[in-house]
Amino acid sequence: MSEKAVEAQPGAGVELSREEIFAAHLGGKLSVETRLPLLSKRDLSIAYTPGVAEVSRAIAEEPGLVDSYTWTKRLVVVVSDGTAVLGLGDVGPRASLPVMEGKSALFKTFGGLDSIPLVLDTTDVDEIIETLVRLRPSFGAVNLEDISAPRCFELEARLIEALDCPVMHDDQHGTAVVVLAALLNAAQVVQREIAGLKVVISGVGAAGVAVAKILLAAGVQDLVLVDSRGIIHHGREDLTAVKTDLAGQSNPQGLTGGLAEALRGADVFVGVSSAQVPEAEIALMSDDAIVFALSNPTPEIHPEIAAKHCRVVATGRSDFPNQINNVLAFPGIFKGALDAAALRITEPMKLAAA
Amino acid sequence: MSEKAVEAQPGAGVELSREEIFAAHLGGKLSVETRLPLLSKRDLSIAYTPGVAEVSRAIAEEPGLVDSYTWTKRLVVVVSDGTAVLGLGDVGPRASLPVMEGKSALFKTFGGLDSIPLVLDTTDVDEIIETLVRLRPSFGAVNLEDISAPRCFELEARLIEALDCPVMHDDQHGTAVVVLAALLNAAQVVQREIAGLKVVISGVGAAGVAVAKILLAAGVQDLVLVDSRGIIHHGREDLTAVKTDLAGQSNPQGLTGGLAEALRGADVFVGVSSAQVPEAEIALMSDDAIVFALSNPTPEIHPEIAAKHCRVVATGRSDFPNQINNVLAFPGIFKGALDAAALRITEPMKLAAA
Repeated sequence: MSEKAVEAQPGAGVELSREEIFAAHLGGKLSVETRLPLLSKRDLSIAYTPGVAEVSRAIAEEPGLVDSYTWTKRLVVVVSDGTAVLGLGDVGPRASLPVMEGKSALFKTFGGLDSIPLVLDTTDVDEIIETLVRLRPSFGAVNLEDISAPRCFELEARLIEALDCPVMHDDQHGTAVVVLAALLNAAQVVQREIAGLKVVISGVGAAGVAVAKILLAAGVQDLVLVDSRGIIHHGREDLTAVKTDLAGQSNPQGLTGGLAEALRGADVFVGVSSAQVPEAEIALMSDDAIVFALSNPTPEIHPEIAAKHCRVVATGRSDFPNQINNVLAFPGIFKGALDAAALRITEPMKLAAA
Repeated sequence: MSEKAVEAQPGAGVELSREEIFAAHLGGKLSVETRLPLLSKRDLSIAYTPGVAEVSRAIAEEPGLVDSYTWTKRLVVVVSDGTAVLGLGDVGPRASLPVMEGKSALFKTFGGLDSIPLVLDTTDVDEIIETLVRLRPSFGAVNLEDISAPRCFELEARLIEALDCPVMHDDQHGTAVVVLAALLNAAQVVQREIAGLKVVISGVGAAGVAVAKILLAAGVQDLVLVDSRGIIHHGREDLTAVKTDLAGQSNPQGLTGGLAEALRGADVFVGVSSAQVPEAEIALMSDDAIVFALSNPTPEIHPEIAAKHCRVVATGRSDFPNQINNVLAFPGIFKGALDAAALRITEPMKLAAA
């Protein structure tokens, strides 16, 4: 356990040892605490029997009171099937739990919301929806997490219809919101309007699709998407429905080829694919290029290497400068939605958050 | 909201106002807290990305590590469908939530375990089992709560088979353990052996059945069960399978009739039915009688009334003397089972707990 968890990288501000990481995770990162003391007979009489019966009777008569007298109104369930955990892939629900506990901890720390992880031993979209519908009285909102594409698109869309509460797939929309926010800031640094930027997104999974959509909604005109088989264009016959749809809204110059062809002269690179990008390809970008290498735990290119060729460099990690991570967005988005008793999280809400 | 929550009753040690009860429940009784600080970039690098990826990788390689590096090993889910909430009946999952939050709070306070309520919008036994099987990676043990009989018997039995973790219906076995423990103590007070006591149980639901079984296992010879239609005996044609089974193990004198016939000369009354018992019927019991009027929130007979005719009187409430409540048992039973990594909670474990 003495090897370094993170490969020694020049410029990484934080060096972590495996011992330190595992010691910090021992027993998990969450605990449930009581908000009322239960020390005296009087405390028990109020919080349990007979007092609690009054509260139950009141909710039975007026169901809306459940929002006032239970924790559900501020409880976000972080739901995963463990199929797309960070950049690790399909490691299963148990191995996803440390990430989900971390997410719940972030909800508490940055949003003041209570949150519990629910990891599922099924990857069937119908079964996941059915399970959450049955559990609906237990929570106030659903944060979908680390669920693989394209299942995640169908799951999120159907769950929004099935549940009368905020539902958001954070890997899509949390990422999209922070990328747009970061791009608005980076554009100021290089003194450009985002409408005039040539943007390349590497990775057309959950995050890539949502980033593409929010950038288009925010006014980006020249957007090129690249998946593992190259640039998305109409000539390709291997596109899913989602990618076909995006082909119609992107790549205005009709580029073909791979990432190198896309990056030649591009102003912005957004990496959400885990695929490594050679320094030589980053060097093809325009002057004042902006690079967001967002994959976790390993960015598409080391930020110090990218910085040799670019003006603005950011990653998704806490231990490099310029972190772009969903944690900047999702606690506030859910907090706002729950405080406003919103039944859905809408596109204008996401744009406003960015 | 100014009326008293609990009818003014002579001798009640605790007077509670509705204001006080509802104020204490505002926002619910639980919160999720982080066990690690998330204040610095270093904290985030350990608890979230990139550090958490090491922990997820380790669990993916060796699934048993999930017990060490997540909270599941000490997490009890308190599961209800809201069909038999306290003595209130089928008030539904939302109205059951204050009770389930209270239960989770008791697990923390008296067992040091983390616990979350999961209330289900289905009363179908198959669906409840299926839901918990899908959620299995999320928790370490299941406390079933306030689920109506006879569904609760089938649900518990099948869930024990379906899940490789401790499962207990507390209304049955938590109650049974504390009643047996209380009866052992009360027998000492009246200087009798429990094998020689004539015991009457009023109520043959979840609690009544489990109390009957544990008392028989502990050596009680003369046990009479009374449900809403009278004494359980072989001549009745309206018995469920569970009650038919108990008819074969109880009522050795072949009594028929109602509660009055059962109580004549009885040494012990155990009330778990919510049905009120007239003072005149309690007066029929033997000298040195023992009365456990356990229904919540309203005992079968007021303890001061019963005390006029009996030697030992107890209720289920925190605000009367001599409380017999599951809280004395379930936190310790689950704590012991989880600490021992037990896959089941067995009959000998329950007898030992009493």
